[in-house]
Amino acid sequence: MPYINVDKNLPGIRSLMAFRPETAEPLSALAEILLRDDTGLSRTDRELIGTYVSYLNDCFYCHHSHGEIAVCYLNGDRDLVNAVRQNYKEAPISDKLKSLLQIAGKVQKSGKAVLQEDIDNAREHGATDRDIHDTVLIAAAFSLFNRYVDGLASVAPQDLSTYPLRAKQIVEYGYGSHIFSQPQPV
Amino acid sequence: MPYINVDKNLPGIRSLMAFRPETAEPLSALAEILLRDDTGLSRTDRELIGTYVSYLNDCFYCHHSHGEIAVCYLNGDRDLVNAVRQNYKEAPISDKLKSLLQIAGKVQKSGKAVLQEDIDNAREHGATDRDIHDTVLIAAAFSLFNRYVDGLASVAPQDLSTYPLRAKQIVEYGYGSHIFSQPQPV
Repeated sequence: MPYINVDKNLPGIRSLMAFRPETAEPLSALAEILLRDDTGLSRTDRELIGTYVSYLNDCFYCHHSHGEIAVCYLNGDRDLVNAVRQNYKEAPISDKLKSLLQIAGKVQKSGKAVLQEDIDNAREHGATDRDIHDTVLIAAAFSLFNRYVDGLASVAPQDLSTYPLRAKQIVEYGYGSHIFSQPQPV
Repeated sequence: MPYINVDKNLPGIRSLMAFRPETAEPLSALAEILLRDDTGLSRTDRELIGTYVSYLNDCFYCHHSHGEIAVCYLNGDRDLVNAVRQNYKEAPISDKLKSLLQIAGKVQKSGKAVLQEDIDNAREHGATDRDIHDTVLIAAAFSLFNRYVDGLASVAPQDLSTYPLRAKQIVEYGYGSHIFSQPQPV
């Protein structure tokens, strides 16, 4: 039961964005740039970083929503997304992405937890300044999204079969703020 | 020493925003709406919430920058801003603001830390849905800003005398993204 009076037909962050469209606009613009930019990190990498941080924050709505988007990009490989959630060090992903997930996991705790050795490790595996910047900002952005969604107790659908359709819409149309106010499933 | 190659003449988040102008735009638009909206919470209340969360996150640059902006709005009352930082429960502020700072302190830890009793307490002291929404989102936004600033080890000027001038500029001109790339002091 949400703490404020939002549209009961909208789940998670979408109900909050419909409640306050003025802040929905920059939030969705930020998601669009950070998660769908094709320079450097792939869209899959970006969604996996967001999923991992949301999983660490135990944000059910966010880690299932973004996990499903990653599943879409990975042509249905849900096992890989689960492997990243549970133990990315053993997941079948590149060493570069592992090094960036290490940084993202530090950011989830605190900005100050990121050490020079984490950065050096990422550079040794081919990460550029832009990759490191985007990783830190994606992890910081999910530190916002997760707190926003759970801090207002927005509704997270418990039926996991509702997430894939919504994910497909995001993959196709992006994070434009118009998306968040439409009464679509999930 | 920042972890990525940013303009050494720019401090804190301003150096990061100049590095990646595409993300600077929605971030500064978010700050502009959340911290300078005059509906419900005052600009002073909004800056005090941001300062408090930044102080809890030990983000030197953010809690001094936003603390000084609050000092400006309070006509120089730095003692009040310090009282909010250190023990808001005993600070000479309204019970309503205290109840919202209680929520913000929970959000700093985790969205899930906010309980129905925190919301009930805020409502008993006159907080509206909009006040509660904005408090949670301000606290969540500073969870992003603080991690962004410290996760990339951006430079925080240690000379506190440099912060008031910058604060005055923000009070006068706002958080427009053009502000962040100008080589001004602080």
